[in-house]
Amino acid sequence: MTMTADRPDSGFKLDPSDQLNDLRMSAKALPLLEHVKRFIRETVEPMSEEFHRLGEGWTDIWSYAPGQLEVLEAAKDKAKAEGLWNFFLPNAETGEGLSNLDYAYIAVELGKNRLASETMNCAAPDTGNMEVLERVGTPEQKERWLKPLLEGKIRSAFAMTEVNAASSDAKNVNTRATLVGDEYVINGEKHYISGAGDPRCKIMITMVQTSPDGPPSLRQSQILVPTDAPGVKIVGPMCVFGDPDAPHGHMHIIFDNVRVPKENMLLGEGRGFEISQLRLGPGRIHHCMRAIGSAEKALDLMVTRGLTREAFGKPIIQLGGNIEIVSRARIEIEAMRLMVLKAAKAMDVLGNQEARVWIHMVKAMVPERVCQIIDQAIQMHGALGVSQKTPLARMYTSTRTLRIADGPDEVHHMVVGRNELRQYREAPSDPSMAAVFRS
Amino acid sequence: MTMTADRPDSGFKLDPSDQLNDLRMSAKALPLLEHVKRFIRETVEPMSEEFHRLGEGWTDIWSYAPGQLEVLEAAKDKAKAEGLWNFFLPNAETGEGLSNLDYAYIAVELGKNRLASETMNCAAPDTGNMEVLERVGTPEQKERWLKPLLEGKIRSAFAMTEVNAASSDAKNVNTRATLVGDEYVINGEKHYISGAGDPRCKIMITMVQTSPDGPPSLRQSQILVPTDAPGVKIVGPMCVFGDPDAPHGHMHIIFDNVRVPKENMLLGEGRGFEISQLRLGPGRIHHCMRAIGSAEKALDLMVTRGLTREAFGKPIIQLGGNIEIVSRARIEIEAMRLMVLKAAKAMDVLGNQEARVWIHMVKAMVPERVCQIIDQAIQMHGALGVSQKTPLARMYTSTRTLRIADGPDEVHHMVVGRNELRQYREAPSDPSMAAVFRS
Amino acid sequence: MTMTADRPDSGFKLDPSDQLNDLRMSAKALPLLEHVKRFIRETVEPMSEEFHRLGEGWTDIWSYAPGQLEVLEAAKDKAKAEGLWNFFLPNAETGEGLSNLDYAYIAVELGKNRLASETMNCAAPDTGNMEVLERVGTPEQKERWLKPLLEGKIRSAFAMTEVNAASSDAKNVNTRATLVGDEYVINGEKHYISGAGDPRCKIMITMVQTSPDGPPSLRQSQILVPTDAPGVKIVGPMCVFGDPDAPHGHMHIIFDNVRVPKENMLLGEGRGFEISQLRLGPGRIHHCMRAIGSAEKALDLMVTRGLTREAFGKPIIQLGGNIEIVSRARIEIEAMRLMVLKAAKAMDVLGNQEARVWIHMVKAMVPERVCQIIDQAIQMHGALGVSQKTPLARMYTSTRTLRIADGPDEVHHMVVGRNELRQYREAPSDPSMAAVFRS
Amino acid sequence: MTMTADRPDSGFKLDPSDQLNDLRMSAKALPLLEHVKRFIRETVEPMSEEFHRLGEGWTDIWSYAPGQLEVLEAAKDKAKAEGLWNFFLPNAETGEGLSNLDYAYIAVELGKNRLASETMNCAAPDTGNMEVLERVGTPEQKERWLKPLLEGKIRSAFAMTEVNAASSDAKNVNTRATLVGDEYVINGEKHYISGAGDPRCKIMITMVQTSPDGPPSLRQSQILVPTDAPGVKIVGPMCVFGDPDAPHGHMHIIFDNVRVPKENMLLGEGRGFEISQLRLGPGRIHHCMRAIGSAEKALDLMVTRGLTREAFGKPIIQLGGNIEIVSRARIEIEAMRLMVLKAAKAMDVLGNQEARVWIHMVKAMVPERVCQIIDQAIQMHGALGVSQKTPLARMYTSTRTLRIADGPDEVHHMVVGRNELRQYREAPSDPSMAAVFRS
Repeated sequence: MTMTADRPDSGFKLDPSDQLNDLRMSAKALPLLEHVKRFIRETVEPMSEEFHRLGEGWTDIWSYAPGQLEVLEAAKDKAKAEGLWNFFLPNAETGEGLSNLDYAYIAVELGKNRLASETMNCAAPDTGNMEVLERVGTPEQKERWLKPLLEGKIRSAFAMTEVNAASSDAKNVNTRATLVGDEYVINGEKHYISGAGDPRCKIMITMVQTSPDGPPSLRQSQILVPTDAPGVKIVGPMCVFGDPDAPHGHMHIIFDNVRVPKENMLLGEGRGFEISQLRLGPGRIHHCMRAIGSAEKALDLMVTRGLTREAFGKPIIQLGGNIEIVSRARIEIEAMRLMVLKAAKAMDVLGNQEARVWIHMVKAMVPERVCQIIDQAIQMHGALGVSQKTPLARMYTSTRTLRIADGPDEVHHMVVGRNELRQYREAPSDPSMAAVFRS
Repeated sequence: MTMTADRPDSGFKLDPSDQLNDLRMSAKALPLLEHVKRFIRETVEPMSEEFHRLGEGWTDIWSYAPGQLEVLEAAKDKAKAEGLWNFFLPNAETGEGLSNLDYAYIAVELGKNRLASETMNCAAPDTGNMEVLERVGTPEQKERWLKPLLEGKIRSAFAMTEVNAASSDAKNVNTRATLVGDEYVINGEKHYISGAGDPRCKIMITMVQTSPDGPPSLRQSQILVPTDAPGVKIVGPMCVFGDPDAPHGHMHIIFDNVRVPKENMLLGEGRGFEISQLRLGPGRIHHCMRAIGSAEKALDLMVTRGLTREAFGKPIIQLGGNIEIVSRARIEIEAMRLMVLKAAKAMDVLGNQEARVWIHMVKAMVPERVCQIIDQAIQMHGALGVSQKTPLARMYTSTRTLRIADGPDEVHHMVVGRNELRQYREAPSDPSMAAVFRS
Repeated sequence: MTMTADRPDSGFKLDPSDQLNDLRMSAKALPLLEHVKRFIRETVEPMSEEFHRLGEGWTDIWSYAPGQLEVLEAAKDKAKAEGLWNFFLPNAETGEGLSNLDYAYIAVELGKNRLASETMNCAAPDTGNMEVLERVGTPEQKERWLKPLLEGKIRSAFAMTEVNAASSDAKNVNTRATLVGDEYVINGEKHYISGAGDPRCKIMITMVQTSPDGPPSLRQSQILVPTDAPGVKIVGPMCVFGDPDAPHGHMHIIFDNVRVPKENMLLGEGRGFEISQLRLGPGRIHHCMRAIGSAEKALDLMVTRGLTREAFGKPIIQLGGNIEIVSRARIEIEAMRLMVLKAAKAMDVLGNQEARVWIHMVKAMVPERVCQIIDQAIQMHGALGVSQKTPLARMYTSTRTLRIADGPDEVHHMVVGRNELRQYREAPSDPSMAAVFRS
Repeated sequence: MTMTADRPDSGFKLDPSDQLNDLRMSAKALPLLEHVKRFIRETVEPMSEEFHRLGEGWTDIWSYAPGQLEVLEAAKDKAKAEGLWNFFLPNAETGEGLSNLDYAYIAVELGKNRLASETMNCAAPDTGNMEVLERVGTPEQKERWLKPLLEGKIRSAFAMTEVNAASSDAKNVNTRATLVGDEYVINGEKHYISGAGDPRCKIMITMVQTSPDGPPSLRQSQILVPTDAPGVKIVGPMCVFGDPDAPHGHMHIIFDNVRVPKENMLLGEGRGFEISQLRLGPGRIHHCMRAIGSAEKALDLMVTRGLTREAFGKPIIQLGGNIEIVSRARIEIEAMRLMVLKAAKAMDVLGNQEARVWIHMVKAMVPERVCQIIDQAIQMHGALGVSQKTPLARMYTSTRTLRIADGPDEVHHMVVGRNELRQYREAPSDPSMAAVFRS
């Protein structure tokens, strides 16, 4: 019954000369990559140091320290002037934009500095929100919310995770929105609303239940809720390893009879799932791309520290197994990079649906290993590594969280493993196997 | 040249019927253990929940929220009334106290709840500070500082780590204390001064350099510096994975012409190292003992979560490799427990110096593995696991820090590895080996 | 619902001052240990080198090379003369013998040299077979088979694993024994009959099915089958990683109308399971004890090689992470040793049944980690490490096999994990948990 | 001093749109791949089963069992007839052949069956020997040895590793060849001469020392030694985990006054190193390519076993963490495949010298992980997994050996790690770093 034939789906079946294996960045996107790298080096990095310096000792954590927003805005203006702005977004009219593969190369660079994405208006969750508004928003919704988002004037959030239900199953949304006259009245409790702590956050795309008795896939809707709407009560932040991640924040919010005009509904009642499909695949893989940038940054910091810090009369990189740690990190990074590029190419060639196994593979693979690399960089730094004096601790907590967000590692492994088993399904001779695919 | 003979030191040479292998708790300490367990269950745990509830939403992080200190003090009073107080301390007159082995059993229990140690006045760094004052303090120093510490009226800190020098080498202390008239004038900059953020922290035992030109081991002294002395400037906290650990805090402090009476010197100028010896071995192993308690707590939370949370129609403990994760955690915990007990017994039987390889072994082994177990418990909790809603995230960051504090894992492995090689040293036939022991 | 209470069985509930935690070897067994160590060093090791030297180039692999048995027998005679003989066996009349704990200390030494056990007549599977005969044999059976076994004149095998059934479930035995007149007629096919390749192997305790329609636990019997009985057809060896392990061998045997007198039945028809209980617990843990001896030997070889072999101008132990590898091996060995001692003590104190979780824990823990240590020793030896020029390769394959024999690691982890969950069973508040314990 | 700039060599500096990232197989090689896959499935696999069946019970291990060579030769004839023959070899006149990238795709297939390479006359060490003879042989040498090798009439060996010197340093060759009259007289002792046990092996390319006092890189020569030359004494096999790997064998051979005509010298005295360069890079990577084929085969066997074997009422693939094991294996395989393809492409684009970091990366990465996957497949098979009844045990031992051959993992990691550090070398500000690059 052994079947050594290729696996029947997800591009495994394509022959090896197929373009799926051509992982070259397109020539036309190359100048953008070079520009982004230069801009990060020359503008974002110095700004970033200044930004953090200004924040030192600032205790009103849910606001920005004096001067911080000014230096950030100046960098954003510079990015805008140089055309490094909103490049994540396909052209509204032609639909053209960066391929997933081209974007992957750029996203790795964005992952090396925490403020890089925002400076070029390519930061989550705004990117996903802008894509949704671009594709499904009414002219009025676009004018009111998309325009200032595209201009970088405001920020936004995506309110999805319920306090009282397992969020891995989207059917569990139980924040209710009921149409009363011309308004939807919203009641519920959500947490982990990332970015909702930022004073500049003005709008939340909110997943709500509109038809509790409808077919499961039509019960939900997505609706625009301004953060200053009466009844929006911020309980506080959900910390990440004790870090409130202020002022961005992953907020816990109660919706207490919040009223919004019925025109705030996106696309129409019951189409919440449909909208969700737009953001899921690319979102997962963007995180992984940036995580590789984090790993590169961690390796860079690890080596720099190891070469300049001495102990027992030697640079510590020379001690024990440290050079092997560096080697393993480099090998892992190159392997992960190729896997992410392949997944991105698969999305370009096969579409998000057919490429999904590749997406699950990188989501299961990348955050776990990047965590390890960052952890080793922390260890090489000693006590500084866990402190706020290097970016490593925050890189660790956000990458660690990524092993949980958008499905925990275990679920992605389950999907990949079952896909592997599926090719053996047809084998007629062994009825006992049927159980595997039923479960 | 193969030598299968027993290793020549650290008790490896003792025969297996030696009391070194008797890891039984003493019968006389058993009632204390039972009392501590009952007290934690009946008093500390409910108090702890109340304490955290009172702190929710409190934003003035460097103070306690209203009511917090009251519930804590009530529990402390109860502990004192029940005789569960200062039991870490040997009897001042007889020198008698709990053996390291007996204390190990108790410390595991203390490690299961973050507030347990403090409630029974057995929390670091007060324990080490009290031991030092008890042993080397003058009657005046004892009256002024030891008495309120023993009564739990004030708290204390140990100011050791220099900003501008590698602290793993104690010779690097460069905060200067100069005798000017009847006062020492202290200038320097230190960080990671744990507990100095607490408003109740009144005194810091401070490592200073008094004789920069003396023999290396006589250059340092330890001196008492009140936290409210003029010139003590708190720069801010060193965060741990973004967590300021307020109000306890791991503070960054500048000593700017701080003046203290010359009577604040401990034991005499140049005896700083001598005093340090008192606290090092037991301190390392106390951390490991408590870390095992943390691992027990993490496993308990992991199983509870796994049994009560459902996904895909089953309790998640039933999914994938989760039961094996539980098994491995239980096995690791029992193995670590036995190693810690053995190290404690070795300290009792052989003395701290002869037992040092055992101490290095547990310090290299325990924090790394406990981190893994806590990390797996976090993964089983999903997003809740990284939040402040369970104790896991904070347990993780403090255990992760333990892999760096008191010598990083790598240094402890180096000591253990070299000790292993040392037994082969005498082999006369191979001169090439000499290099190994020179380096 | 969190329960931090102690686990309710397997000795977890006993208080820590219980003798369960006294892991000292008994004073009376100590001289035996010292004697065994000296005998291995002075007699077994030189004999072992001679034995292997004599075997070099010998191609008739299912026999011994000239001289091999002579040197082995001489060493056995010496052991017998010195009283180092059959000490695994409890006194036939008093039932007294070495405790499991005392035997554990000795078994570690036996594990350091492949021929040590046999030289002292303590080698598997003879040990288990002798115990069985001692306890359940008739006077005639004892005279005919036990006597020469106890004298080391013959060797034996235990024929258990069926070719055509999963052996992890003992109900699957389907080699049939039918009483025809005064003889049992046996038909079936078994493999992995360890030791049956040895020309000195004269008798096999054979698990057979006698009552296919009886209650599951009464269907099996154990019967004595001489290896030279007509119809016993050796098909060939089951190799272990390509190694036939000759002349010992793990043989594949067809029983083709083999006839043995009905007096060869052990204890009586249908009592096969009952007899199996005698050997299972201790057998598992004896393997683990010896595996720790293997790990000690591997570490010794690793360090010796690392100190004497040079590369890049240094002893290779100095390169890369090798010293940390040594440290981790030492730490693992000490942790495993304590766990095995604890399991042995648990068997002494609680009995095999109550101690079973400890047995599963060490069986799941020890072979996996010892494999790693041996593997690292191989790597330190380069190509020599995988060759027959060091004992490492064979130590690896036999320890690797141990991860499968007597239940694969996964099954032991499952038992340990479920035992951990069981303590939460009574929790009345959550009916969903019931499913866990049903499955 | 942080340098996030790209690494300065080994193609890291090339822009991402460079063809280095185009991992597509060439369209012209695609039909060959398809043909190879079909041929393995339809011819090699059935032949292979027959071949092993014929060998069962054959005890004269250094010869082939009756019928074995016949079925093998029949398959070879078929391969030759279909043009699937010697395709590893570039065209003698044009120098054209498969690119490394194209060969990589094919080699993965060859790695799935142990006899596949030989059937198509693409087996090591013949491939390297044929390449050497093709490039540097005289017409007479080619007629005498290359011709029958190309026709698959004889086999060959490469005698390199010295018994009495560390072979990782090629300067250590100390088998002497001295010109006496018209003959070279050769004396020395070598082992691990793979393939020299095969009765069909007629010629050994032998590394000898000809000028002990010359410059280190000119001391060695390579010379043709027929296996039947008087004085060639086979001592016996070097086993691999106890497996003699007969009749192929990794032989230990003494050269005792072996005389060969001076015309047997390859290329000329002192050019031994020069010839070695021809085979090193590609040889390392071919092994890795085939190892990926092994991993695919192991995963296939693992899943097949897991789906068809039941325990506790379920297919065992459903138990515990097995599906996650499958997922991780699939992810690792895809990541390794991409890394090997990238390394092969780097060799094509940059040349072997510039691509060397990539070669070291895959050599450090692939065998270690493939070992793990095979090991897990073994575990899933239980006792069968370690036996000769599945190909897994032999796949394991040969892949494990690959972690040592051609430089142990540790050396490859050292090269990769140091290459990573090298980019920081120019940093002028920190003289302490110089030491790192000196060592």
